[in-house]
Amino acid sequence: MFIVSQFWKKDSTKRVFSGIQPTGILHLGNYLGAIESWVKLQDKYNMVLYSIVDLHSLTVPQDPTALRQSIFDMTAALLACGINPEKSILFQQSQVSEHTQLSWILTCMVRLPRLQHLHQWKAKAAQQKHDGMMGLLTYPVLQAADVLSYKSTHIPVGEDQVQHMELVQDLAQGFNKKYGHFFPVPQSILSMCVLVFYPAPMKKVKSLRDPSAKMSKSDPDKLATVRITDSPEEIVNKFRKAVTDFTSEVTYDPGSRGGVSNLVAIHAAVTGLSVEEVVHGSVGIDTAHYKQIVADAVIEKFAPIKSEIEKLKMDKDYLEKILRTGSAKAKELAYPVIQEVKKLVGIL
Amino acid sequence: MFIVSQFWKKDSTKRVFSGIQPTGILHLGNYLGAIESWVKLQDKYNMVLYSIVDLHSLTVPQDPTALRQSIFDMTAALLACGINPEKSILFQQSQVSEHTQLSWILTCMVRLPRLQHLHQWKAKAAQQKHDGMMGLLTYPVLQAADVLSYKSTHIPVGEDQVQHMELVQDLAQGFNKKYGHFFPVPQSILSMCVLVFYPAPMKKVKSLRDPSAKMSKSDPDKLATVRITDSPEEIVNKFRKAVTDFTSEVTYDPGSRGGVSNLVAIHAAVTGLSVEEVVHGSVGIDTAHYKQIVADAVIEKFAPIKSEIEKLKMDKDYLEKILRTGSAKAKELAYPVIQEVKKLVGIL
Repeated sequence: MFIVSQFWKKDSTKRVFSGIQPTGILHLGNYLGAIESWVKLQDKYNMVLYSIVDLHSLTVPQDPTALRQSIFDMTAALLACGINPEKSILFQQSQVSEHTQLSWILTCMVRLPRLQHLHQWKAKAAQQKHDGMMGLLTYPVLQAADVLSYKSTHIPVGEDQVQHMELVQDLAQGFNKKYGHFFPVPQSILSMCVLVFYPAPMKKVKSLRDPSAKMSKSDPDKLATVRITDSPEEIVNKFRKAVTDFTSEVTYDPGSRGGVSNLVAIHAAVTGLSVEEVVHGSVGIDTAHYKQIVADAVIEKFAPIKSEIEKLKMDKDYLEKILRTGSAKAKELAYPVIQEVKKLVGIL
Repeated sequence: MFIVSQFWKKDSTKRVFSGIQPTGILHLGNYLGAIESWVKLQDKYNMVLYSIVDLHSLTVPQDPTALRQSIFDMTAALLACGINPEKSILFQQSQVSEHTQLSWILTCMVRLPRLQHLHQWKAKAAQQKHDGMMGLLTYPVLQAADVLSYKSTHIPVGEDQVQHMELVQDLAQGFNKKYGHFFPVPQSILSMCVLVFYPAPMKKVKSLRDPSAKMSKSDPDKLATVRITDSPEEIVNKFRKAVTDFTSEVTYDPGSRGGVSNLVAIHAAVTGLSVEEVVHGSVGIDTAHYKQIVADAVIEKFAPIKSEIEKLKMDKDYLEKILRTGSAKAKELAYPVIQEVKKLVGIL
């Protein structure tokens, strides 16, 4: 009994921060890779902040009407997935002006080459996906400000965010070195660590069309990505057309059988079973039939979330209130931090 | 009578904005080149904003205690020079969070090469005066936000700011093109235009040690720059050591006699006489004696300002109140503008 209560006692010394862009509907990849762990973190830590980072969405062209709608849609989706405004602070980044204020101060502490050498900027440059837009160059500094505005100590990040995490740490340390110890140096919580409570630790969800690539909202192949709001027919169709191989048996071997292993991993994650249990339960079933089983499990997992999203989207006033209340709470935390920062740098 | 009242009627359709960094004590160059015209503009326009742009000071390393003091010192100096908080809004940039909020939105609308090609960045890079610091690269975008946060229509700028002025105009036009007409495209008021009311239009004040260079606060030769707060002895000494030529006569010929012409221009500006009157009055006086005459005129001009600065600096509470009140007024103007901007881009 003692062990159990210790185990579930919330950690009040840590501040967890994470953000998600409002654009793009949640899909299986970010649901299993991030949002499900966000929900768990609410019970583990006392202070948990989740930000809908709309200012980051402006780094690429947006249709204003669609962007406005997507902020509400993302709020509805996060609530439906289990983000609980009583347990965490769910807020809209642009409503807390402290982020851009701190961002300017941090901008004055970083050099152009450092940002130019970040992998994501270089990769986009190589793919000619940006046109030298300054927002895409400098958003990692705004990300650092997002985190440090709350003196956050822990950040759930994906492996592709490791470089940006290092930048946050370097900026915190650089500030502390210059102005005296002030910011905790935030640590990353990799999804694997978060998922220690899961029966089956979830790997990155792969594209259904190319098991070597991550499932992504921006995949040009519409069949690659399963969105939470997809209809049952769409989900069945996407799994039916999922790339596997010429072996009909269901096994888990990500190295040599990426496609079917991705299906097994998804199946395990959405049912809460272990990979072994899933594989054991699929003996004698061929992959064609197995795709239908996984699709059904995903449909079953998403059905209540999907109907909750629909319900919440009807009540825009409620969503607005959630964001307004959350942003006010966030501002209450960030304001004194930024006041202190201003004093330390000499402008207050 | 009708003509006179028309002449002095304030223009209520225009919004004038300008900013000055708090670091560095006011000198003869920026007093005659900018501050004196700022004072005049207060009577010409209904809405005039002057900002102590402390966030721009952070683009280079600062000692926090010195920076904090310099914000008060600059406030005192501007008030002593005639900036009147009843006629204009005198405020501290960092107290109005709208500037950095708009700056982020504008950052997402500008490309890296555009900023890298700005003359001041290139010049500093050539002189190895920066180290690729991002603040020095991006501050022209924050300048644009400073101006546009108030939908300013007119900006008193020096000729060295023409490129930055073009950036402000391009960002205003770019925003209008994308989101519908919203920002007026600000026009520059070159000092020459402002000084149309002056008996002697003032050219740029030159260094006393090198008449080919502008008088500057950062001149390494301490004798080059006359500060408002210099003692009479320092002023006399600086003018005594001013570089002239081997002709003892006092004439005005900036092309071939830069040194003495600079003295004549300063003399005319501080006495309110025309260049012709000054030259006429100096017939038979050699340049050595003339230097003493100009020094005395400058001392006389600065004496009341200097003593007012000393008086104001004793009353920190008053200076704090001025900045707080001014910043609150500025925020009242900027807040609805930024709310509208947020609606237009789709985040509100």
